[in-house]
Amino acid sequence: MTGRFITLEGPDGSGKSTALKQLIKIFNQQTQDNLVLTREPGGSTIAEAIREIILNPDYPEMDDRTEALLYAASRRQHLVETVLPSLKADKTVISDRYLDSSLAYQGGGRELGIENVAEMNQFATENLMPDLTLYFDVNPEIGLSRIDQNREKDRLEQQKESFHERVYETYQELYRRYPKRIVKINANQSKQRVVDDTIKAMKDKFPELF
Amino acid sequence: MTGRFITLEGPDGSGKSTALKQLIKIFNQQTQDNLVLTREPGGSTIAEAIREIILNPDYPEMDDRTEALLYAASRRQHLVETVLPSLKADKTVISDRYLDSSLAYQGGGRELGIENVAEMNQFATENLMPDLTLYFDVNPEIGLSRIDQNREKDRLEQQKESFHERVYETYQELYRRYPKRIVKINANQSKQRVVDDTIKAMKDKFPELF
Repeated sequence: MTGRFITLEGPDGSGKSTALKQLIKIFNQQTQDNLVLTREPGGSTIAEAIREIILNPDYPEMDDRTEALLYAASRRQHLVETVLPSLKADKTVISDRYLDSSLAYQGGGRELGIENVAEMNQFATENLMPDLTLYFDVNPEIGLSRIDQNREKDRLEQQKESFHERVYETYQELYRRYPKRIVKINANQSKQRVVDDTIKAMKDKFPELF
Repeated sequence: MTGRFITLEGPDGSGKSTALKQLIKIFNQQTQDNLVLTREPGGSTIAEAIREIILNPDYPEMDDRTEALLYAASRRQHLVETVLPSLKADKTVISDRYLDSSLAYQGGGRELGIENVAEMNQFATENLMPDLTLYFDVNPEIGLSRIDQNREKDRLEQQKESFHERVYETYQELYRRYPKRIVKINANQSKQRVVDDTIKAMKDKFPELF
């Protein structure tokens, strides 16, 4: 595997999508490198079909472990169809969400345990971990307040505040566990400063790309 | 958990459905026990939706590990919605297929390995194993020849003969590993003898039910 694998993590409303858009602009101006931008479940038809089941608000009876297994299935398909072929072609892959999301949302938020969810996901990832994870660290209240209140919320966004608080705490725990892989971006700041910090983190890790 | 959990295993065309129908008739005549008859993915809406993705012949790009994770997700939901509540209510649950099917088809047929698939499935089953598994042992050629050749085959039935041969070998291996849990029924025999042997196996294990 010769490419670079970068993942973006953090709750909805953390500004990671905005930062990503700016990052791409600068990236394209300053480098000739081939950039593959993707998100789970990405453009995979199968992974999208799985995601539709997960987020369907008509399925309140979905068990937490079923949810975690479906995310792992979707992750696997996205990995095989999109991420792995790009890395093999020596490209830089930036994925909006990956394994840490399952650890935070299902392991922490659903209280299934980080270790249980990590172990099960090894079957899906075969231990492929990102070279760099940008974690957009935002206070849960600020993050939630940034989400468009008018659109219909999916099954995970409908969760109580205590759920989002546990997601937050778990992201902090993951950062403590993997300080080399995970770089924390202070996402409570203004958009511009979040963008600046994101680019700096990328340049620090991959100076050869810029 | 106070009920009894019985699973039926074996390839399609092994006659397990026919045997099951006869078993129910005799069961109802001879016992007052509450019988719950189910099959993976059973009557669970979510589990059925997952199964539709798995068997869709339009998805030839499905990765083997994705398939195994989807079966585990479907199994989990069926377990939580149907099997566990029935066992807690002290009923006898007979499920057409359970964990051994994943070990045989994904572990053996897809060559993902029995141990890998078993370990991942622990997340789904939390180690709930059947009290009795009736394994309908049929030669792969006989089994395949019994399947209606006119209807459209699903994604798994379309597999080559070597796939079905590996499934067969893995069922044999599981029988060798778990001789206390698994009772082998010679399904190469006539329908009536398969039925007779099935009922005998049930009576031997649960004499109090008849």
